[in-house]
Amino acid sequence: MRAELLAVGDELLYGDIVNGNAAWLGRQLADVGVTVTTSTVVGDDIDMIATAIRVVLDRADVVIMTGGLGPTQDDLTREGIAAAAGVGLRRDDFLESMLRRRFRDMGRGDGGRRVPQMNYRQADLPEGAQPLPNGTGTAPGIRMEIGTGVVYAMPGVPFEMNGMFTASVLPDILRRAGQPAVVVHRVLRTAGMWESAVAEALADEVDRLARIGNPRIAFLASGGQTRVRITARARDRAEAEMLIAPVETAARTALGAGVYGGADDSLEGVVLGLLVQRSATLAVAESITGGLLAGRLTDVPGASAAFRGGIVSYATEVKASALGVDEGLLAAEGAVSSRTAAAMAAGVRSRLGATYGLATTGVAGPQPQEDKPVGTLHIGLAGPDGTVTRSVRLPGDRPRIRTYAVVSALDLVRRMLAGLPNSEMTTTGDGAP
Amino acid sequence: MRAELLAVGDELLYGDIVNGNAAWLGRQLADVGVTVTTSTVVGDDIDMIATAIRVVLDRADVVIMTGGLGPTQDDLTREGIAAAAGVGLRRDDFLESMLRRRFRDMGRGDGGRRVPQMNYRQADLPEGAQPLPNGTGTAPGIRMEIGTGVVYAMPGVPFEMNGMFTASVLPDILRRAGQPAVVVHRVLRTAGMWESAVAEALADEVDRLARIGNPRIAFLASGGQTRVRITARARDRAEAEMLIAPVETAARTALGAGVYGGADDSLEGVVLGLLVQRSATLAVAESITGGLLAGRLTDVPGASAAFRGGIVSYATEVKASALGVDEGLLAAEGAVSSRTAAAMAAGVRSRLGATYGLATTGVAGPQPQEDKPVGTLHIGLAGPDGTVTRSVRLPGDRPRIRTYAVVSALDLVRRMLAGLPNSEMTTTGDGAP
Repeated sequence: MRAELLAVGDELLYGDIVNGNAAWLGRQLADVGVTVTTSTVVGDDIDMIATAIRVVLDRADVVIMTGGLGPTQDDLTREGIAAAAGVGLRRDDFLESMLRRRFRDMGRGDGGRRVPQMNYRQADLPEGAQPLPNGTGTAPGIRMEIGTGVVYAMPGVPFEMNGMFTASVLPDILRRAGQPAVVVHRVLRTAGMWESAVAEALADEVDRLARIGNPRIAFLASGGQTRVRITARARDRAEAEMLIAPVETAARTALGAGVYGGADDSLEGVVLGLLVQRSATLAVAESITGGLLAGRLTDVPGASAAFRGGIVSYATEVKASALGVDEGLLAAEGAVSSRTAAAMAAGVRSRLGATYGLATTGVAGPQPQEDKPVGTLHIGLAGPDGTVTRSVRLPGDRPRIRTYAVVSALDLVRRMLAGLPNSEMTTTGDGAP
Repeated sequence: MRAELLAVGDELLYGDIVNGNAAWLGRQLADVGVTVTTSTVVGDDIDMIATAIRVVLDRADVVIMTGGLGPTQDDLTREGIAAAAGVGLRRDDFLESMLRRRFRDMGRGDGGRRVPQMNYRQADLPEGAQPLPNGTGTAPGIRMEIGTGVVYAMPGVPFEMNGMFTASVLPDILRRAGQPAVVVHRVLRTAGMWESAVAEALADEVDRLARIGNPRIAFLASGGQTRVRITARARDRAEAEMLIAPVETAARTALGAGVYGGADDSLEGVVLGLLVQRSATLAVAESITGGLLAGRLTDVPGASAAFRGGIVSYATEVKASALGVDEGLLAAEGAVSSRTAAAMAAGVRSRLGATYGLATTGVAGPQPQEDKPVGTLHIGLAGPDGTVTRSVRLPGDRPRIRTYAVVSALDLVRRMLAGLPNSEMTTTGDGAP
C-alpha cells in the first residue's frame, strides 16, 4: 500500500507555521508499517487542491489530507475533493443538525448561540463522501473513494486531527490493506540513560520483533530523555494488549530503573508524586541550572503540595550568604565541586525547611570555569539520612548542558525516593561532608 | 514567477524531523514577493526524486531543493537531478581539490585527515550544472538549468542551507525574475506590546508600503514578544539600506519604547547589558514564574557580571522566611497582591545584596488562587530610589502566562533602567510600601 500526505494552507507555504502534522502522521504510519512515499503542501486554491489530489491518486492508494475544512471562504478542501472527483457538494442534514446542537451546547449560560451562516459550510460534503466524526471540534472529516483510491480529509488543528486519525482514519486504512485494524501504543519514558544505552539494552528485542514485524519498537530522544514506543496491530484491543504485554515486560526488565513512567507522565510530575506519597517536601539550590530546575518543577499544576521553593545562588558569595556554604570550602575547592554541591543541598534544605534539598553546580560554558571543563556537573541531595552527591560530564552546548543537568538532578531524586539503583550516567561523588 | 520547494529525505517522511526548512524558505520568499505554490517531500530514491523534479518543472519556473547532498549512499539528490535532466554525473576537479583542502584544514593538530573515499561523491555534479559555494560545510550546492526552468539544490542542514540560500540562491532567483537582487532584512524586536498593538501602530506604514511593494513589513509574534521584519530589495546593499532607513525610522517612532533591540538581541541580554553599563546588579524573587525568570537571565553566557541570583518563594511561608515579607501583609492581602510583590522585591534586593530586586507573584492556573483570577500578575521592582509595582492580567494557559510574566518583568526593568515610559500593557500598582 502506498500512502501520501497532502496538506492544504497558504500559512504552510508562507512559513507562518511548520507542517508538524506531516511529521506526526509519518510517525504514526511508520509505526504500523505503512510507507509514506510523498508529502505535499498546496495553497488555498480549489484548482491546486483538485489537481494535487488527482496527481497523488495516480501513484498512491491512499491520500491523507489535513487543513482547509474550517468555516471561512479560504477553507476549500471540500470543494477541492469534489472537483477532483467531478461531483458537486451536498448539504448533509445530519451534519447540519450536529452543528446546530454543538452551537447550542456551546451557548449554555449566555442564552444560546446561533450558528453563523458561514459555519453551515461545514455541513457540506462532496456527493458520495462519508463524514468522519470530530470528537473535539466543529469540522467533520471527509472520507471519499475516487476510482480505486481513497481520500481522507481531516482538520489542520493538530489536536482534532490526531483524534480523528486514531479513531477513524488509521483503522480504515488498515482494514483496506487487509490488516488488523486496531493499533495500540505503549510508551515507556526513561531518564538517566543516554539514547544509545536505551537502544543497546533493547537491541535483542528489536531484532526479534523485526523478524516478526508486529509489534514494533521506536525510540524518540529529546531533552535528555528517551521515550520507547511499542506499537501493536491487532483485530481488537485485547489482542493488541496481549501482543504488547511480553514486549513491555522485556523492555521494562532490560531498562530497569531507567523507566520512570508512561505516555502521560513527566519526570518532574513523578518526582513530585513520590514526594507527596511520602509527605515530604523539596527545595532546590541552583547554580548551573540557574532557576530552570525550579522552573521545571513549577510547570506542574499543584507543585506547591511538595515544592517549597529554591535559591538561585549564581554569584559565588550568594552560595555563602544565602545558603551558608562554608567560605573556606568555596576558597579551597571553588564553586564547582562535589563538596560545594553537598553543602548547597544541605543549606537550602535547612534554610527553606524542606525534607530534601537538591543542588546543582557545574560549568555550562561556553568558557571553562575554575579550570573545570564545560559540561562538568555536580549534584547534591540532602535528606533526613544525610547527603549524597553525583557527578557527570555532560555533552553539548550551553542550553543542552543546562537541560541535561535539570533532568539528571530530578532523576537522582526519583531514584533515591523510589529506592532504585544509581544512574549509570553519573559517578558517585567523593565529597559528601 | 512560480517557485516550488522540494525536500528529499526518508527522515522527513517518517516524521523523525519536521520540515522546518520549508517554513524558513517560505518566509524568505514571501518577504521578497515570490509566491511558493507547492511544497513537496520525497524519500531517498533516485526515480522518485527525478520524477518529482520533472513534475514540478512542468508547472513552476524555479525548484528549490533541500537535502540529499551528503556523502553517504542514501544521499541521491545529485543522481536525481542528473536523471531528471537526462545527463550523467561528472567529477569536478575544482570541487575535488576544495574537498581535499577542507579535510586537510580540519585535520590540523591530529596529523592531517585523509578524505574518506565516499566523500568524493560530494565533488560530483550533473553534466551542465554549476556548483553553489557552501561557506560552512563540505557539501556544495547545485544549480542546474533544465529546459526553461532552474533547479537549485542545497544541503538539508538548516545552518548551511540558510547561508547558501541568502548568498547564492535568492540573488540568482531575483536576477532571473528581472528584479533587484540584493535583499536586506532589518529586524526590530519589541516587548511590552501585544502583537495587535504592534500591528496597529504600523498599520499606516504597512498600507503605504503595500502600494509600493518594496520594502515589506512582516510581524512574527512568539513567547510574548513581537519581531518586526523590514525587507528591502535593491541592486546593491547601499540602495537597500536607503530604502530601509525611512521605514525603520517610521517604525521606531510608531513603536516608541516598545523596541528593545535588533535581530541578534534578546530581552534578557539587553537588561543585563543595561545593568553592566550602570555597574548595577539584579536579584529576583519569584512566585508565579517559579525560577523561569532566573533561568532566562542565566541563559545568557556571562550573566554573572550583573545577575546575583534569586529566591523562588513558592510556598507562602518562604515569602516570609526567605524574603522577609511581613506575615501580617501576607495574611491581610494574600500572596498574590501588588504590595506582596513590592515586599518580595525589597526583600530579595536586601538579602542578596543587589542594586535592584525584581519580583513576580500571580496566578498561573489552571485554578484561581485566593479568589484572584487565572492570569493575574503583579511585578515589583525595588532599587536605590524606592519600589515600583505594575499589574497586568495575562491571557492564555499556564505555560503561556508564565512566559508572558517573565517577559513583562524583564521589560519593566528595561524601561526603568533606560528611562522609558511604562508599558501600556501594565497598570501602575497601588501597593508600594
